[in-house]
Amino acid sequence: MTLDHPRLISLAAGFTDNASLPVNEARELLNEILLSSKTGQAALQYGTTLGDPALRRLTAQRLQSFDTGSARTAEPTGTYDPSRVIITAGSQQLLYMVMEALCDPLDLVLVEDPTYFVFLGIMQSHGVRARGLRLHQDGLDLAHLAQTLEALKHSGELRRVKMLYLVSYFQNPTGRSTSYAKKLAALELLQRYEGAAGHPIYLLEDAAYRELRFAGEGEKSALAAPFAERVIYTGTYSKPFATGARVGFGVLPEPVFTVVERIKGNHDFGTSNLLQQLLARALATGRFERHLDDLRKRYARKAETLDRALRAQLPAAVEWQEPAGGLYIWVRLPKRVKTGQHSQFFQTALQHDVLYVPGQLCYADDSTRTKPNHEMRLSFGGATLPDLREGVAHLGAALKEML
Amino acid sequence: MTLDHPRLISLAAGFTDNASLPVNEARELLNEILLSSKTGQAALQYGTTLGDPALRRLTAQRLQSFDTGSARTAEPTGTYDPSRVIITAGSQQLLYMVMEALCDPLDLVLVEDPTYFVFLGIMQSHGVRARGLRLHQDGLDLAHLAQTLEALKHSGELRRVKMLYLVSYFQNPTGRSTSYAKKLAALELLQRYEGAAGHPIYLLEDAAYRELRFAGEGEKSALAAPFAERVIYTGTYSKPFATGARVGFGVLPEPVFTVVERIKGNHDFGTSNLLQQLLARALATGRFERHLDDLRKRYARKAETLDRALRAQLPAAVEWQEPAGGLYIWVRLPKRVKTGQHSQFFQTALQHDVLYVPGQLCYADDSTRTKPNHEMRLSFGGATLPDLREGVAHLGAALKEML
Repeated sequence: MTLDHPRLISLAAGFTDNASLPVNEARELLNEILLSSKTGQAALQYGTTLGDPALRRLTAQRLQSFDTGSARTAEPTGTYDPSRVIITAGSQQLLYMVMEALCDPLDLVLVEDPTYFVFLGIMQSHGVRARGLRLHQDGLDLAHLAQTLEALKHSGELRRVKMLYLVSYFQNPTGRSTSYAKKLAALELLQRYEGAAGHPIYLLEDAAYRELRFAGEGEKSALAAPFAERVIYTGTYSKPFATGARVGFGVLPEPVFTVVERIKGNHDFGTSNLLQQLLARALATGRFERHLDDLRKRYARKAETLDRALRAQLPAAVEWQEPAGGLYIWVRLPKRVKTGQHSQFFQTALQHDVLYVPGQLCYADDSTRTKPNHEMRLSFGGATLPDLREGVAHLGAALKEML
Repeated sequence: MTLDHPRLISLAAGFTDNASLPVNEARELLNEILLSSKTGQAALQYGTTLGDPALRRLTAQRLQSFDTGSARTAEPTGTYDPSRVIITAGSQQLLYMVMEALCDPLDLVLVEDPTYFVFLGIMQSHGVRARGLRLHQDGLDLAHLAQTLEALKHSGELRRVKMLYLVSYFQNPTGRSTSYAKKLAALELLQRYEGAAGHPIYLLEDAAYRELRFAGEGEKSALAAPFAERVIYTGTYSKPFATGARVGFGVLPEPVFTVVERIKGNHDFGTSNLLQQLLARALATGRFERHLDDLRKRYARKAETLDRALRAQLPAAVEWQEPAGGLYIWVRLPKRVKTGQHSQFFQTALQHDVLYVPGQLCYADDSTRTKPNHEMRLSFGGATLPDLREGVAHLGAALKEML
């Protein structure tokens, strides 16, 4: 595509900002690690399947501190015990392994409507079906969750439901968040139907964008819930630091933890030790947090730039929500403007050298409703500020041609 | 275990030698990459699912050069086309993905008897059954392969056979190799039964130890075969350079390639770019080959040390083969000395502070034969020269107690 369109501006890719990548910090950290033959050899040797103990501990402490306000150095306990943490190749690998651990073909997973499209791909590849749950500006529609569980109970399909997948912070693709109170209510609802299901129904909380909030304190994760034994939590160190490092993590209850550990052993028996040491040292020395502070300001400015450009260039009938974090703005066009890959608008946008993710791709195949087809996901992650402005101007021109 | 036995010498772990790890080389390479903001940013950014184009090309050129004697800079073509290469998290991930791509529960995979025990774990976790093929000092028993295929045809199970898994160079656990001529003959045999099977039967060649040969030129891989469209090849850059880097690769024919690419996208959408750049630069600058030359000499010396210690310390009834590469020596004890994890000998060895891998673990569950239970895998990879000598002295003492 870039061959045909050498001046193409991509508002599609979920990349992070190139100029924001911590090239100097990474170099300093790697030099510190590799200048000592002791830490250097450890970094270049095999590690363990579960991951570097220091990184697992730092991860546990950090999450506990987020949720409870405890000091970053406090002993992690209970749900935050480091023994519940596994280090993975990005949070992606954790999602994949949880699917392998919990789901059989034809099982059902409840997802937000729309949701992270790669997760839909993972489900499809395992023959797992999705049921979409309405998503409001303030997150998951609890009434729809209750109604869906009840309907599945009546149709006899509840025994097929294994989990609810929730991208709880600045969701991909909508940028919306689901509050802690809603997570608690969702957990209670799921628990209420476990008897009829005949097995646990887990909440898989994907917190990939949790740290990319532009300001303020974040909501608690579901790990803080009183019945956290049904919570599987995943996060990543790639997006807040360096996507090329591909280090993520999961926090899991038994018996899922043991199954996922075995799967991880079969996948790759442990994530690269060198990358884990890099992240552990970035966290321990405070460089990670300093970088993250910069990143938040940078993305806040990019989000604002994209938002302003949309206001300036798109007609009033177009709707979106200004994001408070993450990498995306979800844009709803007038219903008559279809946005799919084969739509006239997508082609017109391409002719205007601008690319977006068609909203349709983010909706699960769910025969109980039709897929909306007039939305698009715009990312302010990868593009520069001038490209954000120019890209939106191109989008505006394409839309003008259509309307 | 190390808590109970603080002076334990492990001849079990398949680790590489700590002192051999290229700490300085890795530091130099990473500095070169990260001192330029262009290559630095690229290394810390997402890459593609299939891997870094430069590394895929270097991999293809290298394999072509191994098999055809062409210059390392020659254009890779045909079977060695870079478009057939995928970069993975160690060769382990490739093995896992091929299993996912090709096998359904209850399918059959032919394996060497004994074989790489982690592969057996991957098979088990997918509900895939194994049929063990006899392995001689000079590699795979072709007559047994022919006989097994014929028997499976008669029993109607041939349609379940999806591939032959062959660790062709300095096999884990036996250190044995299978010649190119035998690989060709095996491929011909498999092809002959494809009609009755109703589908392709692949040869999965695991060349993880190919480069760890102590001297001379290596055998060609099955990629050089005239019917290489049934060959799936996997290798690794971790063992010959730095195990902590976890970079491996596969060379795959269609349609397997496309399926594995999709699975890789779902697993982790691409191996860490930083690690790939590290390996690509190590290869391109010649540092990889220089390090490998040193490593070969080092392992040759360690293998010799282990071999001599076995000669000096173990009774004449004990048998093994001096290895020509790899990391392992496979030791056969008198039949009455059982070596399993719960055996008296294993416990006695532990009391003498020495650990080995019980041979039984390396045999597939295959009801058509009983598992030999008086063998052990010794690794000269991780232990130092003094520890190799001392470990074997301990083994000798334990054995003396038993006999």
